[in-house]
Amino acid sequence: MRLDYARTRHYRDCAMIHNDVELLKRGVEEIIPEDEFVKKVERSQRENRPLIVKAGFDPTAPDIHLGHTVLLRKMRHFQSMGHTIVFLIGDFTGMIGDPSGKQDTRKRLTREEVLANAETYKKQVFKILDREKTVVDFNSRWCEQMRFADVLELTAKYNVARMLERDDFANRYRDGKPISILEFLYPLIQGYDSVALKADIELGGTDQKFNLLVGRDMQREYGQEPQVIMTMPLLVGLDGVQKMSKSLGNYIGINEPPKEIFGKVMSISDDLMFWYYELVTDVPLDEVAGLKAGIADGSVHPRDVKVRLGKEICAQFYDRETADAAEAEFNRIFVRKDLPDTIEEYAIPESEKSDGKIWIVKLLVLSGMAKSNGEARRLISGGGVYIDSDRVEKDDYELPLPATCVIKVGKRRFMKITG
Amino acid sequence: MRLDYARTRHYRDCAMIHNDVELLKRGVEEIIPEDEFVKKVERSQRENRPLIVKAGFDPTAPDIHLGHTVLLRKMRHFQSMGHTIVFLIGDFTGMIGDPSGKQDTRKRLTREEVLANAETYKKQVFKILDREKTVVDFNSRWCEQMRFADVLELTAKYNVARMLERDDFANRYRDGKPISILEFLYPLIQGYDSVALKADIELGGTDQKFNLLVGRDMQREYGQEPQVIMTMPLLVGLDGVQKMSKSLGNYIGINEPPKEIFGKVMSISDDLMFWYYELVTDVPLDEVAGLKAGIADGSVHPRDVKVRLGKEICAQFYDRETADAAEAEFNRIFVRKDLPDTIEEYAIPESEKSDGKIWIVKLLVLSGMAKSNGEARRLISGGGVYIDSDRVEKDDYELPLPATCVIKVGKRRFMKITG
Repeated sequence: MRLDYARTRHYRDCAMIHNDVELLKRGVEEIIPEDEFVKKVERSQRENRPLIVKAGFDPTAPDIHLGHTVLLRKMRHFQSMGHTIVFLIGDFTGMIGDPSGKQDTRKRLTREEVLANAETYKKQVFKILDREKTVVDFNSRWCEQMRFADVLELTAKYNVARMLERDDFANRYRDGKPISILEFLYPLIQGYDSVALKADIELGGTDQKFNLLVGRDMQREYGQEPQVIMTMPLLVGLDGVQKMSKSLGNYIGINEPPKEIFGKVMSISDDLMFWYYELVTDVPLDEVAGLKAGIADGSVHPRDVKVRLGKEICAQFYDRETADAAEAEFNRIFVRKDLPDTIEEYAIPESEKSDGKIWIVKLLVLSGMAKSNGEARRLISGGGVYIDSDRVEKDDYELPLPATCVIKVGKRRFMKITG
Repeated sequence: MRLDYARTRHYRDCAMIHNDVELLKRGVEEIIPEDEFVKKVERSQRENRPLIVKAGFDPTAPDIHLGHTVLLRKMRHFQSMGHTIVFLIGDFTGMIGDPSGKQDTRKRLTREEVLANAETYKKQVFKILDREKTVVDFNSRWCEQMRFADVLELTAKYNVARMLERDDFANRYRDGKPISILEFLYPLIQGYDSVALKADIELGGTDQKFNLLVGRDMQREYGQEPQVIMTMPLLVGLDGVQKMSKSLGNYIGINEPPKEIFGKVMSISDDLMFWYYELVTDVPLDEVAGLKAGIADGSVHPRDVKVRLGKEICAQFYDRETADAAEAEFNRIFVRKDLPDTIEEYAIPESEKSDGKIWIVKLLVLSGMAKSNGEARRLISGGGVYIDSDRVEKDDYELPLPATCVIKVGKRRFMKITG
């Protein structure tokens, strides 16, 4: 079965529940328990009653990158089949913060900050989710109504030993690192959110498995049918080793220009490429298997497969035409005849990236394309410096970061810049 | 220094803070930390500012017995020196209960029940505390105002590992017995009570040491000077082995008749007697030491020392005259010449005590003083059965329990009844 962009649109416009279990399971790490999942899905279709699918997000304002889209796309799958997805912002705990000082990065947010962050989320996630059909909710809605007595009731429903089974708690306890009792309440709150929403399914990363399971227990304790949990793998970053994250710099931001997105996809390894096919595209898995086999028997060139992936990903955040243009631009720079077969590469060191931009003169010197600031300035004023195919007109130009581009100096000197 | 009943009255009527550190320390198991205790006490006197002395009580309605008075008397000591004592009823958690089912005995109480129980307390404890000067408070006063966010703030201030150091938690965790997360909140609530009251000192049994220490931590976290904790030993019961408790039957209830109280004191061992002197009388410790030495060198008869103890205790719950009368009554029965030197004793078995009384005919048969119900009835109707010095007039008489008395049948048949 082929599920492409057009097909997804079809689902979005369809009022009837129309489940595609194969697509729902695609790329999922675990479904717990799988038999209940099948029952819930079948019942939803039989009764034409949408499932309530919950996914929780921190009340921070992250730059959404491809790693986040693994989960967002799964939400979109449910949404496209007529289910109700709830984009739940955990603002309640964010407004509390953790004053214990164990998590220095956890700042106390004001209501205004939370709402501003929610807007930032919306601007980004509606590149993937259907704006009209997404329920954005905040857990402060019910948590703020709760009194001490309600909290005690909540805490009576879970026990310490089970909480300490959570991997990170277990490790910290064993290593003598402090765990505040507050931290024991967070999973209970997340679990109670499922009760408040009467969630049928909760989605999360594999690192959220424990908390998602607490939701099942809490619903059972409050007399509800327990949710099914689906965990999504954490997407490996461009380096092919660590999980994609902004701080590691190995990411593709969904707001990056099409050319950047396409270029970054072209830089990944062939192995990683197939993971990305599974997790961040809807190209049918049998077709993906065919591509893999084609590479193995030499009938398909890996580069073409990667180009397709780059265009698929680009098209998600822009459209097919923009994706095509990004490919053409990429080819014009990297594939045209005057480029050498191998091209030297320079990665901008972390220490130079803090401003979010780098002065072109500095970059030429650092990368060894000019011996001094003076030479760099002369090269620029002589009209001999190009970034991709654009001539650098002034020597005060600052290249915005992150960037992936080719700098050309004179006729034959090329350097691929990353960072 | 001699501190007797009259002296205590003097303190009660004295508006100035007049500390007697020796008396305050009397019978105390631990003062933590002792140097802070001395500082607080000295400052209170210097500034003539009463210390706020807190002691917490369950919202149940216990029959107060001598064991409870160890703590109540310590409160009274502070009170008699001009300090403010707070009799704090932990009604908030009592109204919550523990629905986890781990503590079956913990019932959820209504507000009406809590208030009724508080009245029951008052009826009893004002035999020891000064009614006019006792602040009776309820922790629901502040706990009910707290919202989820306040609770989270509270829980951020304590960590899991330290909580698990509490002996009973440590044992249960090790043995794989469940501890609900709610149970982790109880010590925090008790600690927060100290914050709400701005307690200078908290009193409790040795079994409360951990919770009392949490109060110190909580006050520090909330920017207050930490309270000093004083733990009182648990009073050993009449059996000389187990702690005094109603369920074990080894207790002296403060509402028991003077004769009962006196008689029960007379039944304890000589060793135990000196503990009681220290913990439940104000007889100066040097005087107690003198009595002990007197027994050792044969100059004092143990019985006389025990009689004094019995009267001291009686006088606390009644008055000196009643105590004297109790002694006289006791002597009349137990010491008069027509009693044999040794007297047979019959302990009513637990199975017969459930009604809180026992039918005299049954008792005569059970104890072997009559061979059958028929014989027992004939003895009673013949006017030959006495309980202590009172003739049993009717054969439907029921002896209220618990009881300590001597039954006489005919001229020479005696049996000491306990139970």
